[in-house]
Amino acid sequence: MQNTFTNKNLSYGIVEVQDPFWSPYMQLIRNTVIPYQWEALNDRIPDAEPSYAIHNFLVSAGLKQGEFEGMVFQDSDVTKWLEAVGHSLRNYPDPHLEKIADKAIELIAKAQHSNGYINTYYTIKRPGKQWTNLQEAHELYCAGHLIEAAVAYYEGTGKRQLLDVACKLADHIDDVFGIEEGKIRGYDGHQEIELALVKLYKLTNETRYLMLAKFFIDERGTIPNYLLEESKRRGGNSVWHDQPAPFMTSNQLDYHQAHKPVREQEVAVGHAVRAVYMYTAMADLANLTGDRELREACCRLWENIVNKQMYITGGIGSSPHGEAFTFDYDLPNDTVYSETCASIGLIFFANRMLEMERSSGYADILERALYNNVISSMSQDGMHYFYVNPLEVWPEASEKNPGRRHVKAARQKWFGCSCCPPNVSRLLSSLNDYIYTVYPEENKIYTHLFIGSEAEHKLAAGIVQLKQESRLPWEGYTRFEFTLVPEVDFSLFLRIPSWCSGDPVLKINGVAVGFDIQGGYAVVVRQWAKGDILEWEMNIEAKLVESHPKIRANAGKVAIVRGPLVYCLEETDNCSVISSISINRKSNLEVSVDSTLPGNPIVVKAFGRKDQQLSWREDIPYRAVAQRNDSQSVLVNAVPYYLWGNRGVGEMSVWVRAFDCE
Amino acid sequence: MQNTFTNKNLSYGIVEVQDPFWSPYMQLIRNTVIPYQWEALNDRIPDAEPSYAIHNFLVSAGLKQGEFEGMVFQDSDVTKWLEAVGHSLRNYPDPHLEKIADKAIELIAKAQHSNGYINTYYTIKRPGKQWTNLQEAHELYCAGHLIEAAVAYYEGTGKRQLLDVACKLADHIDDVFGIEEGKIRGYDGHQEIELALVKLYKLTNETRYLMLAKFFIDERGTIPNYLLEESKRRGGNSVWHDQPAPFMTSNQLDYHQAHKPVREQEVAVGHAVRAVYMYTAMADLANLTGDRELREACCRLWENIVNKQMYITGGIGSSPHGEAFTFDYDLPNDTVYSETCASIGLIFFANRMLEMERSSGYADILERALYNNVISSMSQDGMHYFYVNPLEVWPEASEKNPGRRHVKAARQKWFGCSCCPPNVSRLLSSLNDYIYTVYPEENKIYTHLFIGSEAEHKLAAGIVQLKQESRLPWEGYTRFEFTLVPEVDFSLFLRIPSWCSGDPVLKINGVAVGFDIQGGYAVVVRQWAKGDILEWEMNIEAKLVESHPKIRANAGKVAIVRGPLVYCLEETDNCSVISSISINRKSNLEVSVDSTLPGNPIVVKAFGRKDQQLSWREDIPYRAVAQRNDSQSVLVNAVPYYLWGNRGVGEMSVWVRAFDCE
Repeated sequence: MQNTFTNKNLSYGIVEVQDPFWSPYMQLIRNTVIPYQWEALNDRIPDAEPSYAIHNFLVSAGLKQGEFEGMVFQDSDVTKWLEAVGHSLRNYPDPHLEKIADKAIELIAKAQHSNGYINTYYTIKRPGKQWTNLQEAHELYCAGHLIEAAVAYYEGTGKRQLLDVACKLADHIDDVFGIEEGKIRGYDGHQEIELALVKLYKLTNETRYLMLAKFFIDERGTIPNYLLEESKRRGGNSVWHDQPAPFMTSNQLDYHQAHKPVREQEVAVGHAVRAVYMYTAMADLANLTGDRELREACCRLWENIVNKQMYITGGIGSSPHGEAFTFDYDLPNDTVYSETCASIGLIFFANRMLEMERSSGYADILERALYNNVISSMSQDGMHYFYVNPLEVWPEASEKNPGRRHVKAARQKWFGCSCCPPNVSRLLSSLNDYIYTVYPEENKIYTHLFIGSEAEHKLAAGIVQLKQESRLPWEGYTRFEFTLVPEVDFSLFLRIPSWCSGDPVLKINGVAVGFDIQGGYAVVVRQWAKGDILEWEMNIEAKLVESHPKIRANAGKVAIVRGPLVYCLEETDNCSVISSISINRKSNLEVSVDSTLPGNPIVVKAFGRKDQQLSWREDIPYRAVAQRNDSQSVLVNAVPYYLWGNRGVGEMSVWVRAFDCE
Repeated sequence: MQNTFTNKNLSYGIVEVQDPFWSPYMQLIRNTVIPYQWEALNDRIPDAEPSYAIHNFLVSAGLKQGEFEGMVFQDSDVTKWLEAVGHSLRNYPDPHLEKIADKAIELIAKAQHSNGYINTYYTIKRPGKQWTNLQEAHELYCAGHLIEAAVAYYEGTGKRQLLDVACKLADHIDDVFGIEEGKIRGYDGHQEIELALVKLYKLTNETRYLMLAKFFIDERGTIPNYLLEESKRRGGNSVWHDQPAPFMTSNQLDYHQAHKPVREQEVAVGHAVRAVYMYTAMADLANLTGDRELREACCRLWENIVNKQMYITGGIGSSPHGEAFTFDYDLPNDTVYSETCASIGLIFFANRMLEMERSSGYADILERALYNNVISSMSQDGMHYFYVNPLEVWPEASEKNPGRRHVKAARQKWFGCSCCPPNVSRLLSSLNDYIYTVYPEENKIYTHLFIGSEAEHKLAAGIVQLKQESRLPWEGYTRFEFTLVPEVDFSLFLRIPSWCSGDPVLKINGVAVGFDIQGGYAVVVRQWAKGDILEWEMNIEAKLVESHPKIRANAGKVAIVRGPLVYCLEETDNCSVISSISINRKSNLEVSVDSTLPGNPIVVKAFGRKDQQLSWREDIPYRAVAQRNDSQSVLVNAVPYYLWGNRGVGEMSVWVRAFDCE
């Protein structure tokens, strides 16, 4: 079927990651995380919170007696896992894993109703009550994850079973929802279906799916407000409590980004994951339909997030209350939320913005979230996870101050609400899709991420095979070798990262050459020859950074960054009261390899001071300042943020007090 | 009736405050606050949350149709008001006010059951369910406040009606509670009855009341735990929700200080007001019965609070979650709680510790809480109140960050839970009781607070009349004139405040004399003559103070104090991002009178810097630190903390970043 809504003028190529930094992560995902998470979904992890996700499908399919257990959106943990498996199998065939996944898919298919409906919570616990509580019940959210899994699994294996389930489900949703008389004119409390339907459309070319995504986006926040009306219709009843609760009020709408039509939204509000999943779909629709208002809304919301509501680690959603955005410049480090899933959603949004506009700023943010908030969430053994990614940890406060209890000082084995671990899996197992974008008709290849890989890109001019070697994040050196080139010109665009000090050096076959810059990318147009070597040398420097004075939490503080990495101070390398350390703003930063840490990372030392505790008695909480500052000089030791918390429990801080003398 | 349990070897004298700083407060209480709060109790304040407190008594007395409304402990707002009225009438007779109060007392008497029971919530809403939910329902708490009111009203007017109600109620409680077979072996979820029964005992000499207080203290936290058992007995039912809730668990006991017997408690935990009310009663009992274990527990808990869990303003209970203590050195300024009532309870505790041990440290804390946390809670017009007393305010965060929503940027007219305003009234209307303690048999008069006043103290040696004039908190000058003295020696003890720089100067009839020091008090033993003038010159200096390095929230920061007053920076005197200001640790502090502020206070100016915002673009949240610090020199303007928020809504901070150069 032909359609007019397409941005098929771009592709991501066929890319295999071969990178000293990232390949171990992807192996960890394949060899440890995916198997581990399968065990978790089957409740076979000792001492971890049970998932019940497979249990629910078994009960729903009539293969087991029992009740629905776990969160109302538990189904999505299975489908997010399957999506990760799909990506992984696309990159690394694995018959054993595929067999397990096929069985899971068979189970899901058995749990599908004849009309296409599928959701274990409603099937088991609330039969007949489908679609009556869109605000809370995550039915469309779960459907979205099933669709994303189906697309990935089809792309990974060519197998249609889950895709058929997904299309049947999407068709059913299309029958139930819409502006037509007799259909539900509503939308999910937790966005996800929208971006999933776009993916399904892209795979199947079925315009109905795209139009359905557009319907959900267009309806959101219109008056009369569907969610408010629905709340009244069900008498306030909640899936969380089996009893009437107060009706939803209009000031609860921004949690769901349903407080006004999406095109009118000015700033990011509400639940951060819902927000960025929606913005991703909005950008998709803007890209596919040319909707200018949507595009402008996306740009506005993007700017608001990355300029005013994002931690330096790429974390977003600063409040544990509703896992939500609060307001501009409100980025507390200690009571932080910064959910892993939210940063992953930000990466999706960045990816779609890059499709919208070839501007390196989007890739800068994508890289920042990836190298910091996202990978910090997983332990180096792949079996422990953070849901909340703090920039400051005081373990005793995490334990004893209820306002900081959500900030865990150690990664957990699994969570009752375990959305984050499978989200990391599906992102990292598809990391190869984030390195390049290719415009075949324009014969242009954009390099966004410097990750060692072998790539094949189809251009109008012909096939390009390209081998990238990268020393990131430790050195700013990347080398490209063209192993197959067409016989006409094509362009390679190389991102100039925002962290790069000075101009990068471009060498072709060993000879430095100049370059133009477009949208933050170096442009190299050339008739390439097989065996051509392009070297791209970005100057990577450890730096102290400061933050906008309106970010009160960071006043007078600096953070250490180096290339894409944010660094942090850990108790084990410094002292037990991290806040007693301050860094000289003019300090040289010394870098060295620390071979005691996983992956032999580069660590940074700065010159600083440590406030003395010796002169303080236990019974004096406050005293007149000493005339002589009795702090002692210390070397301040910083490690990459993504590695924190891999050496026992202790204090940690990204932002550190700074001092200077005039 | 004679009894052996007495510390009647001390008294507080008959004291009338006549002080340029405090008299206006006491007038405000009499002329504005007490009448205003009466209007509030009668739901006659426009645009304020209704109280329903009088309404409930009317319904309970059968004088009005209606339901119980408001908080379960609403009765106590009436009796705390009556207590304040009692104190006020003792000091300043007022027939009109007395008539209103007599009518309220008549109403309360009508609401009393024939067996002595009185509580409007149970009478109206849960008849027959009395004493079944001690954990939550505040019955004994309300009884305690009624008793305190009765004692104060009797002392203020000599009228017995409320005292008779109170004794009948106390007798009923004594019939219902105790270790004897058939009695309830429980204690209130919110301590208060204990200290009230001690007061009733002191007035009536009825030992049963003292023993009943001791019973409540002794039972608390014993095994089997009464509160846990009770929770099971009532099927978890809660007064907050009319339905079964989960049973209370043992880790909820510390909220009620019922996690272990009180004598074994090491650190202050749980709801701060409950804690200090209980510690007050414990100290009372230790003083009256000579219970050494209780005494040691009081000392331990006192030290823990004031050395490790108290803000510099005398605020305690740092967490909004349960209005509670968290743990040592956890004193965040932004998410602070620091409830007004908790500081008032700390003043009660300090007062009883002073009875236990004549040591100036207790009075130092009493003074700190009084001059800062307590009076800051009330606006200068007496009609607006803080419940939470923050050390840092960002109004937009109070509005938009749910974790800081409890921190109000402006005082409120009244609260649904309005425990604090009447607590301020009853404290300030009895302020005259906190200035002196007198040991008649020893012929010793201790001066704890330097507040202008006329006092009459009965010593074994004879009657002493003493006129104090004080220039505090602005100058450390106090002058005592003896207007009546006995013909034998007696001792005057003068507190040497911890804020005093260097040794104070003592002059008698204009001649400087030396003095001994005992427990932080200067001792002047002398055969005084009528007309003797004693001058006590304490050096008061504005100082920068720093806090213990383990208080992470204050790392690298200083506060400005002067005498008993803590200072703060307000937006209106400085700039809109208060955190962009830092103070030179070596700055001279300049003081001046600001006649634009209420009461012409002394304000403090420090030399500091302000980080530049000009060089920051809206789209740059983080950037490499500038090689040159582009901050500008500024004069930092600090006002007394108790005055903050009287000039519109804006940012405020007590702790300010400091810098120094070596």
